[in-house]
Amino acid sequence: MRMTLQELADRLQGQLTGDGALEISALASLSEARPGDLSFYKDRKYIKQLTTTRATAILVENAWEGETSAKAVIRVADPNGAFAIAAPWFAPPEVIREPGIHPTAVIAPDVTIGERVYVGPWTVIEAGSEIGDDCVIEAQVFIGQRVTVGKGSHLYPQVTVREGCVLGERVILHSGVRIGGDGYGYNPVFLPNGTIRVDKIPQLGIVELGNDVEIGCNTTVDRARFGRTRIGHSTKIDNLVQIGHNVQVGDFSGIIAQAGVAGSTRIGSGCLIWAQAGISGHLTIHDRAQVGPASGLSKDVPPGEYYLGLPAVPKKEFASTLLVPRQVERLRKQVAELKAQVEALTQAIQS
Amino acid sequence: MRMTLQELADRLQGQLTGDGALEISALASLSEARPGDLSFYKDRKYIKQLTTTRATAILVENAWEGETSAKAVIRVADPNGAFAIAAPWFAPPEVIREPGIHPTAVIAPDVTIGERVYVGPWTVIEAGSEIGDDCVIEAQVFIGQRVTVGKGSHLYPQVTVREGCVLGERVILHSGVRIGGDGYGYNPVFLPNGTIRVDKIPQLGIVELGNDVEIGCNTTVDRARFGRTRIGHSTKIDNLVQIGHNVQVGDFSGIIAQAGVAGSTRIGSGCLIWAQAGISGHLTIHDRAQVGPASGLSKDVPPGEYYLGLPAVPKKEFASTLLVPRQVERLRKQVAELKAQVEALTQAIQS
Amino acid sequence: MRMTLQELADRLQGQLTGDGALEISALASLSEARPGDLSFYKDRKYIKQLTTTRATAILVENAWEGETSAKAVIRVADPNGAFAIAAPWFAPPEVIREPGIHPTAVIAPDVTIGERVYVGPWTVIEAGSEIGDDCVIEAQVFIGQRVTVGKGSHLYPQVTVREGCVLGERVILHSGVRIGGDGYGYNPVFLPNGTIRVDKIPQLGIVELGNDVEIGCNTTVDRARFGRTRIGHSTKIDNLVQIGHNVQVGDFSGIIAQAGVAGSTRIGSGCLIWAQAGISGHLTIHDRAQVGPASGLSKDVPPGEYYLGLPAVPKKEFASTLLVPRQVERLRKQVAELKAQVEALTQAIQS
Repeated sequence: MRMTLQELADRLQGQLTGDGALEISALASLSEARPGDLSFYKDRKYIKQLTTTRATAILVENAWEGETSAKAVIRVADPNGAFAIAAPWFAPPEVIREPGIHPTAVIAPDVTIGERVYVGPWTVIEAGSEIGDDCVIEAQVFIGQRVTVGKGSHLYPQVTVREGCVLGERVILHSGVRIGGDGYGYNPVFLPNGTIRVDKIPQLGIVELGNDVEIGCNTTVDRARFGRTRIGHSTKIDNLVQIGHNVQVGDFSGIIAQAGVAGSTRIGSGCLIWAQAGISGHLTIHDRAQVGPASGLSKDVPPGEYYLGLPAVPKKEFASTLLVPRQVERLRKQVAELKAQVEALTQAIQS
Repeated sequence: MRMTLQELADRLQGQLTGDGALEISALASLSEARPGDLSFYKDRKYIKQLTTTRATAILVENAWEGETSAKAVIRVADPNGAFAIAAPWFAPPEVIREPGIHPTAVIAPDVTIGERVYVGPWTVIEAGSEIGDDCVIEAQVFIGQRVTVGKGSHLYPQVTVREGCVLGERVILHSGVRIGGDGYGYNPVFLPNGTIRVDKIPQLGIVELGNDVEIGCNTTVDRARFGRTRIGHSTKIDNLVQIGHNVQVGDFSGIIAQAGVAGSTRIGSGCLIWAQAGISGHLTIHDRAQVGPASGLSKDVPPGEYYLGLPAVPKKEFASTLLVPRQVERLRKQVAELKAQVEALTQAIQS
Repeated sequence: MRMTLQELADRLQGQLTGDGALEISALASLSEARPGDLSFYKDRKYIKQLTTTRATAILVENAWEGETSAKAVIRVADPNGAFAIAAPWFAPPEVIREPGIHPTAVIAPDVTIGERVYVGPWTVIEAGSEIGDDCVIEAQVFIGQRVTVGKGSHLYPQVTVREGCVLGERVILHSGVRIGGDGYGYNPVFLPNGTIRVDKIPQLGIVELGNDVEIGCNTTVDRARFGRTRIGHSTKIDNLVQIGHNVQVGDFSGIIAQAGVAGSTRIGSGCLIWAQAGISGHLTIHDRAQVGPASGLSKDVPPGEYYLGLPAVPKKEFASTLLVPRQVERLRKQVAELKAQVEALTQAIQS
C-alpha cells in the first residue's frame, strides 16, 4: 500500500508540516525507518533518534517543537495511537482463502468436510477425519486418520496432525506444528546374555486442543502414553515449544518460545511459562503461577507464585541469591579487618 | 473403543462395585478424568482426588475401603498393572499402512524399493536411493539422492533426509525431523578494501543413523563437514534436539527434548543427556555419563559421572553451590557477632 | 568415491608406506575411523589413538616415526592441510539441480520466474510472487502471496515463506525454516461478566532477509507486528533458532543453534549470539558484542562486550561469581579461626 502524506494526515485528522505529495509505503521505528517509512515519536528516551532517523515522516504530539531529519511531521493528539490506527493501512493485503478443495488434495472418501472450507494443494486428509465449517487447511498439510478439526480453525502450510487427535474450534496452528507425535518413552531390558534391548513404550493416547488455542511455528505436542495430552481453551503457545506426553495445560495460559514441559506435568489456568523455561515431569504449576525465562523448574509452584532461576526458586529468593557475590566481597573485607584487630588485641594482651 | 464396566471387570478378573452397564471409552489420571473415563488409585498421595474425580470408574486394590466420587470401582490385585493392561483396549486403532506406492509419489526411476514397502502421497524419493523391505515412508516425505533407508524403518509425514545419508534398520523418524542439513561453518575473510566476506565451509559429509534409532519431531541432525555425523544403535532422541556436524553418539544413549550438541563432540554409549542441556563442541562425554537438564557443559565428562549446572560441574559440587546463599547468611551473622565481641574486647582492654 | 592409496599419495604428493592397492572411501578422525577410512595425525594429544584406530591409512608429518594400527601411512608436510585438500574427493557427488519447473509444482499464473530457475515437485508458489534468476526452489516448498526471492537463492525441501516476505540475493534456507509466521501477541480483555477473552493482535508486517543470509533447519523468523523483522546481509543463523517479531539483526552477525531473540530486540553488526542464549525483548545488543551460550540476557550489551550467565553479566563479572563458592569455603575457615581466637582472648582477659 502507498499513501501520500496529505491523505495520511487527513485520515488521521493530523496537522501536516512538509510536502504532502511525498509517499509513505511502510511503518518502522525511528531507528529502523528508511525513506518511504512513517515513524512516531513520543518517549523522550528516543529524542536523539529524531535527528538521525531516515523516516520520511514522523507522527508527533500536537505541542511538539524540535529538530528532525525526517522530511515531514504530522501533529496528532496521540502519536502511538495514530501509529496503531495507520498500521493496517500499510499492511500487506490479507490473504483470502476462498472456500474450495484444491484438486490436488488427497482426501479419503469418508472424510466429513463442513461448509465453506478451504483445502490447499498437496494436502492429505486421511480416513475417518472431520473438518468443521469455515476451516482453512492450507497447502501441504497432513491430517491423519480419525482427526477432528473444530469449526473456524486455520492450519497453515506444512502442519501435521497425527491420528485420533482432536482440535477445538477456531484453533490456529502455524507452519511446522507437530500434533500427536509419539511421546518419549522406553523400557531398557537387560538380557540374560549381558546385552540390552530398548523397548518402545506404546504411545496409545491422543492430543486434545481446546477452543481458541493458537500454536506457533515448529512447536511439538506429543500424544499421551494413554488418555490425552490436553491444552485448554484460549491457551497460546509460541514457536519451538516442546509439550511432552500427558501434559495438561489449563485455560488462558501462555507458553513462550522454546520452553519445554516434560511428561505428565500439569499447568493450571492463567499461567505464564516464559521463554526457554524447562519444566521437569510430574509437577504441578498451580493457577496464575509463572515460571521465569530460561529457568529450570523441578518442584511444584503454588498458585500465583513466580519461580525463576536454575533451579527455579521463588522470585524473592532468586533476587537475594543475586546479592551473594557482593555480600561475600563485603564479608572478605570485614573478616580481614577483624583479623587485623584480633591480632592487634592479641599483641596488646601479650605485651 | 467402548467397553462396559462389566466386560472390563471380567477381562481384568476384577471385582466390580457399581453399574456394570456403564461404558468406558478412555483412560485418564484421577484429576484429569472425565465422565466415560477409567482411572486408578494406589498411591495415598492422591487420596484427596478420590472424592473429586469425575472418572466413571476407578481401579483400586482388593483391600481398598473408602469414599469416591466415581460411579464404580473395580477391585484388582495391582491397579497400576491392570491400568497398563487395559490401556491398549482403549487406544485409537493402530494405523495400518498396507504395502503399496501411492500414485502421487515422485520416485526416480533408479530407486530400489524392497518388499512390502508403503510410500505415501506427495512423497519424493530422488535418484540412487534404496528403501529396504517393510519400510513405511509416509506422506510428504523428502528423500534426497543416494540415501539408504534400512529395512523396517518408519518415516512419518514431512520428514526430510538429504543426499547421501544412511539410515540403519528399524529407524523411526517423526514428523519434521531434518537429517543431513548443512552444518554451521563459515570463514570470515577480511578483504584488502576493509570489508568482510563470509565464506561458507562446504559440508561434504553425511549423517549415519544406526539400527533402532528413534528421533522425535522437529529434531535436526546436521551432516558432517567431512566423514559422518553418527548416531549409534538403539540411541533415542527426543523432540527439537540439535545435533551439530561431526557429532558422534554411541549406542543405547538418550538425548532428551531441546538439548543441543555442538560440532565434533563425542557422546559415549549408555549416556543420558537431559532436556535443554547445551554441550559445547569438541568435548568427550564418556560412557554411561549424564548431563543434567538445562545445564551448559564446557568440559569433558568422565565415565559414569553426572554433571549439571551452568557451567556444568559434578553433581556433588553443584549441590554444594546451592548451599552457598545460606552459608553466606550464616557467615554474616557470625561476623557481626565477632565484630561486637572484638569491640567489647577492645574496650575492655582500653579501660 | 573410492581411490587407491597409491593414487591418493600421488595426488597429495606424499610418501606412502603400505599397500598402494588398498582403497579409501571416506574420511574420519582417528577415533571414529573404520576400515576404508583415511584419517590424520598431528596433535600429540591424540597419540594414543594412533595404535587403536581402525583407519586404513593415516596422513602424518614427514618426520613422523612411531607405531600405528593403521595399515598404511602417507607422509606429507602438513597432515591437516592435506586432509582438507582430500576431503572433497570423498564427498558425495554434489546434487545438481538442472533448471526447469517440475510438472507437479503449483505456480500461480502471475508469478514471475527468472532465468535458469529450478522448482522441485509438489512446490507451491502463490500469486504475485517473484523468483529471481538462478534460484533453486526444491521439493515441497511453500511460497505465499507476493513473496520476493532474490536471485541465486536456494530453498531446501519443506521450507515455508509466508505472504509478503522479501528474501535478498543468494539467501539459503534449510529444510523446515519458517519465514513470516505470526508473532506472539495477544491482548487479554476482561469482560463485564467476569470472564476473559484473549484477542489476537494482528501481525501486519513482514520479514526481510538481506543478501547472503543463511538460515539452518527448523529455525523460525516471525513477521513483524508492523513494518519488518529484518536480518542483515551475510548474517548466518543456525538450526532451531527463534527470532521474534520486529527483531532487527545487523550485518555479518551469527546466531548459533537454539538461541532465541524476543520481540523488538536489536542486534548490531558483527555480533555473535551463542547457542541456547535467550534474549529478552526490546533490548539493544551493540555492534561486535557477544552473548554467551545458555545465557539469559535482560539488559543492553555495549559495543564489543561479551555478556554471559543467568542473568547475563559482563564476562569478567561472571568469572568472579564462579569463585564465590571457594571464597565462602575460605571465609568459613577464617571465621572459625577468628572465633577460636576471640574466645581465647576473652578467656585471657577474664582470667
